[in-house]
Amino acid sequence: MKLAAIVTIGDEILIGQVLDTNSRNLAIALEEMGIHVNRMLSIGDRADEIANTLSRELACNDIVITTGGLGPTKDDITKGVLARLTGSKGLVRHPGQLEKVHSILKNRGLDILPINLAQADVPDTAEVLVNRLGTAPIMIFRNVKGGGTLYALPGVPHEAVGAIPDVLEDIRKHQQLSSILHRNLMVYGIAESALSELIAPWEDALPEQMHLAYLPNPLTGIRLRLSCYGGDSNLQKQLMEAEMGKLKVLLRDWVYADGDSTLESELGRILKEHGLTVSAAESCTGGEIAHLFTSVPGSSAYFLGSVTSYAISVKEKVLGVPAQIIEKYGVVSSEVAAAMAEGVRKLTGSDYSVSTTGLAGPGGDEFNPEGTVWVGVATPKGTKTIKYCYKNDRLRNIERFAASALNFLRLQIVSEI
Amino acid sequence: MKLAAIVTIGDEILIGQVLDTNSRNLAIALEEMGIHVNRMLSIGDRADEIANTLSRELACNDIVITTGGLGPTKDDITKGVLARLTGSKGLVRHPGQLEKVHSILKNRGLDILPINLAQADVPDTAEVLVNRLGTAPIMIFRNVKGGGTLYALPGVPHEAVGAIPDVLEDIRKHQQLSSILHRNLMVYGIAESALSELIAPWEDALPEQMHLAYLPNPLTGIRLRLSCYGGDSNLQKQLMEAEMGKLKVLLRDWVYADGDSTLESELGRILKEHGLTVSAAESCTGGEIAHLFTSVPGSSAYFLGSVTSYAISVKEKVLGVPAQIIEKYGVVSSEVAAAMAEGVRKLTGSDYSVSTTGLAGPGGDEFNPEGTVWVGVATPKGTKTIKYCYKNDRLRNIERFAASALNFLRLQIVSEI
Repeated sequence: MKLAAIVTIGDEILIGQVLDTNSRNLAIALEEMGIHVNRMLSIGDRADEIANTLSRELACNDIVITTGGLGPTKDDITKGVLARLTGSKGLVRHPGQLEKVHSILKNRGLDILPINLAQADVPDTAEVLVNRLGTAPIMIFRNVKGGGTLYALPGVPHEAVGAIPDVLEDIRKHQQLSSILHRNLMVYGIAESALSELIAPWEDALPEQMHLAYLPNPLTGIRLRLSCYGGDSNLQKQLMEAEMGKLKVLLRDWVYADGDSTLESELGRILKEHGLTVSAAESCTGGEIAHLFTSVPGSSAYFLGSVTSYAISVKEKVLGVPAQIIEKYGVVSSEVAAAMAEGVRKLTGSDYSVSTTGLAGPGGDEFNPEGTVWVGVATPKGTKTIKYCYKNDRLRNIERFAASALNFLRLQIVSEI
Repeated sequence: MKLAAIVTIGDEILIGQVLDTNSRNLAIALEEMGIHVNRMLSIGDRADEIANTLSRELACNDIVITTGGLGPTKDDITKGVLARLTGSKGLVRHPGQLEKVHSILKNRGLDILPINLAQADVPDTAEVLVNRLGTAPIMIFRNVKGGGTLYALPGVPHEAVGAIPDVLEDIRKHQQLSSILHRNLMVYGIAESALSELIAPWEDALPEQMHLAYLPNPLTGIRLRLSCYGGDSNLQKQLMEAEMGKLKVLLRDWVYADGDSTLESELGRILKEHGLTVSAAESCTGGEIAHLFTSVPGSSAYFLGSVTSYAISVKEKVLGVPAQIIEKYGVVSSEVAAAMAEGVRKLTGSDYSVSTTGLAGPGGDEFNPEGTVWVGVATPKGTKTIKYCYKNDRLRNIERFAASALNFLRLQIVSEI
């Protein structure tokens, strides 16, 4: 198995100013290719530190990927180190990147200064992949020191992410990698420990070249990634089909998508496919459900709108929840959740609607502990409600309330269409 | 200046399953104490890798902090390494942590297995800080190898964050640190480059022991942190007062809080103080403004609710935006923003309201490019609107639209109360 190290260069990470998402994005991509990430490091903008770290990591890895340390005011240090490390005789200006520098600065209406042009300079030992999203080039140095390959990427997160496909393609071209097939299965509504117990016999009986990874997330549930390593691609496909089939049967009550997805995307896909519309009435989730719906491009095709009814007066006046229901059952109740869902469905004229009323915390009330939520779903066939209880902090509770509500809505829609 | 390294132990970070937030949280805390973080590393659960890395980092840092590598199934490796590294003669069971293991598992209704009790075992060379949030203890090893101090923290993020105050207190007690005074100033609505140019003469003239850091964030604007190093505390306070005063005058048009804060917290503070209420009508921000308002505990005291009017029918029917205004000016217009704000203010009976209508992307329309938003604010004295244009992707545009709307609302409220 090929080994890799990921190195971020820049003081902004060491003082905590920036959270390092680049290393994680690279790690996901490398791991999916079957390259083992040995180590991640974050170091400062100091020439000796950069040189020592890169030398050490190149000696014990096939691939070293750096992000950061490039840019108009920082170039000198990192590029100087890379030049010395690779025995470069000097810098050369790369025509493709130079053109990009010109077009980017022109688009932003900025003057082009010599310091900007120098961005297109690279050690003459570098191969260049043009950075389409920024002024700093992507550099490749092959056979450095012990024979490793060094990729130097820009540090700006969207530029680093943008560079990943080109870097992966280059790695595929130059490294002998054994083939891997991955497939994702999205599940919601089962705890990781219960899932793990349920599928243990299946997992233990997996062919040796197959491996399952759990990738949990409060908003999307658990992404299960099944991987098949080595062998010819037909065999891989057969094994994958067979094992995925068994896994889907085991988890049939919780699977919501075959392939990487989210609850809001999957809901959008179903609603669009059937020409249906949806709306939301939110109390304790305070806009998070609407935010999730509308974070999907094209959601205006099925999401009509929502009401965040934080005050009781808004529940009564806008959503038409009868005051006597609130008085009799309390705001956090099945009855109020139902009335909210019915109210917003009527108000917006949507086919389906979802509602939430609960206590995100801190603090519960006399009837319900913090972390309690009632979810309502109103459909052309009637209204259903369900209660969930979580034990997280306010923001995490809000996320889990919203995801649970989306999943409950999905289950109702799927059962009716 | 004291030097530190931060090491995370665990394969889950190297395969990209988990984003490493522990290192950043530790880095922020250490940097604010005036300790220089030299390096961050993430390594796997392998004994030789852990031992080599810790030995190397202890040799060149005063403090090494690890997170992760502890827990019922992983304990053996990391604790074994720590025991060998510190010349321990064996493990001892820590009574305080043992008690915690019992109470946590009992609370969760779980059986207590021997593997759980072993969580309270530590090398006899360790001092223990009881982990109040989990079963894995916080261990301190002093004078390891070259004289450095090693802190071993649990990897679960909220447990690691929970351990930080105790670790900082221990560091303060045992290390000779020069005193530092920090103060934050929150600004919104000015670009980092423009701000930097505006305050350059002031910044250049700062006393040598003072330093300014920029911490930008799309949702909160820029947090400026002014720090004063060394000297006696009276002098520090005097210098801070004088320089902060000058900075506030320079940035008076953009400052929204003296001290660490957010736009939504600051709005909440003002509204609560004056007994005022607020509501929102959101189109392109799709619930994000409501989500920000309600992410503040206690927001039910002033946030009445909101309408997400994604469909034109909801704008007309729920918010009462006249169809002829939409027809004449288009959905993304000053007129529609104003009518939406007025509509939701009337609907909810709030004192103030804020509205958004725009195009988060991908794609603009025939009149407006992607990234355009009109914000409306309706107040007891009238209605105002403003247009903003951004050039980010969909999710980042939504964040910036929401933050700009909150800031515009804040400016109107402040000018009227």
